[in-house]
Amino acid sequence: MRLMEDMIRNEGKVLPGGVLKVGSFLNQRIDTDLLRETGQEIARLYAGAGVNKVLTIEASGIAIAAAAALEMGVPMVFAKKHRSSNVEGDVVTAVVHSFTHGEDCTVVVSREYLGPGDRVLLVDDFLANGAALEGLISLTEQAGAEVAGAAIAVEKCFQGGGEALRKKGYRIESLARIASMDENSVVFVRDGEAP
Amino acid sequence: MRLMEDMIRNEGKVLPGGVLKVGSFLNQRIDTDLLRETGQEIARLYAGAGVNKVLTIEASGIAIAAAAALEMGVPMVFAKKHRSSNVEGDVVTAVVHSFTHGEDCTVVVSREYLGPGDRVLLVDDFLANGAALEGLISLTEQAGAEVAGAAIAVEKCFQGGGEALRKKGYRIESLARIASMDENSVVFVRDGEAP
Repeated sequence: MRLMEDMIRNEGKVLPGGVLKVGSFLNQRIDTDLLRETGQEIARLYAGAGVNKVLTIEASGIAIAAAAALEMGVPMVFAKKHRSSNVEGDVVTAVVHSFTHGEDCTVVVSREYLGPGDRVLLVDDFLANGAALEGLISLTEQAGAEVAGAAIAVEKCFQGGGEALRKKGYRIESLARIASMDENSVVFVRDGEAP
Repeated sequence: MRLMEDMIRNEGKVLPGGVLKVGSFLNQRIDTDLLRETGQEIARLYAGAGVNKVLTIEASGIAIAAAAALEMGVPMVFAKKHRSSNVEGDVVTAVVHSFTHGEDCTVVVSREYLGPGDRVLLVDDFLANGAALEGLISLTEQAGAEVAGAAIAVEKCFQGGGEALRKKGYRIESLARIASMDENSVVFVRDGEAP
């Protein structure tokens, strides 16, 4: 998506350690034109895919998931993060390692909100090593629901998580695909190119 | 807002201890028709109020704030919650006590995303004793920005937080105003009535 790439190029900051900072337009401060177009593009990509629910993880996926769900006219659900693995109730859980924060967290969804009959679109802001997306896939499948695919705002293709999940047969659509980046430039994968 | 009241009445659950559970339509699972209408109603209430930014707190305020910001065509910002009060960088912070979780947390926004020249609409899912909204007001004023008002999905009027803030001169609009509730029924404040 052109606007996503332009904003990453113009407003994103590559920090030491391979962190792409998008806080000024996609994360803590969210540009509404970008958010609207992101929701429309996700809805376009998954039109006809039979999606009846959008699932994300708190907190930075919620706005994007909401924008997509509004365009698609389906409910959205977000998984909560807990520090403790000791979660009560009729829930499904998965442990996700955050490479950014260097710690594990447990992501949790109530079976009340996700279950058999759901065909689920997974939405998140970033896909790097794939840990968060694997967590969402696990929650969906544990709940007896079906993964329709994933829609990601920014994929760091060079970290390989997306490729590994595509090889397992999951459909993953990323609106901006980064081939490489350093403090001076961000290079995107072009359509039709291998990532 | 009629749809909000209807969904609270039909799908909300009042738990012991005065907790209103709205997880099935407003919180963990979000109904998209309700979300769209909530955004439209907030935009209608604050049309002409000169709002140029929407501010909320992660996580349960984000979807509502995003829906409102999309309707209003202004950016949204969310304050992050930290357990530690030891936060680095050029930020504004406030300590918010959660009566639901029985603990304090520090809410944080970068001065990069909120500052002089901003006229801010504060958005949250619940207003009860007012602690979270006071935190958002404090962040806004510390950053040198101006509070245009607040838009809240559900106000528990009997807890008094909204009334105290209105007396201080803040404009607070709540889409559903609960006068009283118990395990059998929820009674709403009608327009024109004192809460």
